[in-house]
Amino acid sequence: MDFPDAHIAALNDNPLYHALGIRAEQVAGGTARATLVPTAAACWPLPSQPHGGVLFTLLDTTTAWAAMSHGDDGDGCVTVDCSIQYPAPARDGPFTCIATTARRSGRTVFMRAEVLDANGVPVALGQATFRLLKAR
Amino acid sequence: MDFPDAHIAALNDNPLYHALGIRAEQVAGGTARATLVPTAAACWPLPSQPHGGVLFTLLDTTTAWAAMSHGDDGDGCVTVDCSIQYPAPARDGPFTCIATTARRSGRTVFMRAEVLDANGVPVALGQATFRLLKAR
Amino acid sequence: MDFPDAHIAALNDNPLYHALGIRAEQVAGGTARATLVPTAAACWPLPSQPHGGVLFTLLDTTTAWAAMSHGDDGDGCVTVDCSIQYPAPARDGPFTCIATTARRSGRTVFMRAEVLDANGVPVALGQATFRLLKAR
Amino acid sequence: MDFPDAHIAALNDNPLYHALGIRAEQVAGGTARATLVPTAAACWPLPSQPHGGVLFTLLDTTTAWAAMSHGDDGDGCVTVDCSIQYPAPARDGPFTCIATTARRSGRTVFMRAEVLDANGVPVALGQATFRLLKAR
Repeated sequence: MDFPDAHIAALNDNPLYHALGIRAEQVAGGTARATLVPTAAACWPLPSQPHGGVLFTLLDTTTAWAAMSHGDDGDGCVTVDCSIQYPAPARDGPFTCIATTARRSGRTVFMRAEVLDANGVPVALGQATFRLLKAR
Repeated sequence: MDFPDAHIAALNDNPLYHALGIRAEQVAGGTARATLVPTAAACWPLPSQPHGGVLFTLLDTTTAWAAMSHGDDGDGCVTVDCSIQYPAPARDGPFTCIATTARRSGRTVFMRAEVLDANGVPVALGQATFRLLKAR
Repeated sequence: MDFPDAHIAALNDNPLYHALGIRAEQVAGGTARATLVPTAAACWPLPSQPHGGVLFTLLDTTTAWAAMSHGDDGDGCVTVDCSIQYPAPARDGPFTCIATTARRSGRTVFMRAEVLDANGVPVALGQATFRLLKAR
Repeated sequence: MDFPDAHIAALNDNPLYHALGIRAEQVAGGTARATLVPTAAACWPLPSQPHGGVLFTLLDTTTAWAAMSHGDDGDGCVTVDCSIQYPAPARDGPFTCIATTARRSGRTVFMRAEVLDANGVPVALGQATFRLLKAR
């Protein structure tokens, strides 16, 4: 499945991304990149740091785009499970998430992702399994 | 650390919980319970289902309260890492998260949590490690 | 799939279990129980403590039996992924592993397991996803 | 902590590695490499494929060496938790494990590792958290 720029722009116009400050930047060939400029709502309990759940949401949604790019037009995907580590406090945004495919095996896709702060320090690392769903 | 009802009510009045629809209900003795009545912003890409990142945020924050209840007044805690599974689609809210302590070892706390839908079906299962931070 | 005692006894007679000291005890209805009386080879680098990889092997194989009990005769299963925590040192054997089914969704099975020492202290906690494979 | 070749050779002479077919090859600067030439005992239930628990043991022990290289002489380390994925069947050995440090934060070390088959296909991917222990 291809994700041309106009398609990505349309996808970015959704209430969850607006609420948290997420924006997909590029999706192609099993990889994806997105950014987080956290909103005030996303930064709690510390005023300038996105909540760990917001970093997870960034990581999960970016990885889902990367996984979906393996499918056909109209296919969907679901997260089966995901493990996330928080190696450093997320103090210096904006944050960039890069997701890559470790391996696709049939409709199961094994993914890895990392979230970097403005200095390139990893603030979240993830390993996730997705299932591709056929369009009906 | 004790979490009397008035304290929990004050904690619940934060922008992240308001944005997503999270509310802590009870925190005591290494366990915690919270609910999710997902907002419209929390339900994307499917209109009536909370995003996996929102379920993770519910699970992470509930587990953090449970972990913090092992500490002294003013202590904080950080998520070291967390693994989440999504065993079923999250169709039927409201959702309830229950977090319990598997074991505390010094300042490291090993936690488990589950998110149940209105019918008691688990829609998310988690296993997380936290570190307690001393108040300064 | 049923696992009568004679079947389990035959399954236990394998070189991996002999090398490490694993024995399946009971498999039924999506749950399983196994024990570890660690061999000398399993206890390294500390003389009387099984290696974390041996505890993982116990947990993974016990959980696989529990997952397979959902299938038909001759079906197999594969571990998709597994997260393990080590909440306490594994000093006091023998060790008992209990695996339970959180939910089965088609051919994907979401499992949980714990390994307890002789005093009932959890020394390993796991959360795993399996896929059931059809017999050919 | 440095791991000269003679030190690694001595470490490799242990009963667990002999039982499974593991050998550490190189440990330096937060990274490590090890190989698995699986023994007959390590290959069950399929005759020529190492059990998932054996792949985990390879990954865990290799990652532990890499984590320990951050410590001082005599320090130890413990696995706090580890997540492993199995993206492909482990058919074509020998297998090579590469472990790298994502970030060290005080005595907590965040690690990643992968196990590749003889064709370079990843058969296991891991993400683990370790704690460095001070020598007494």
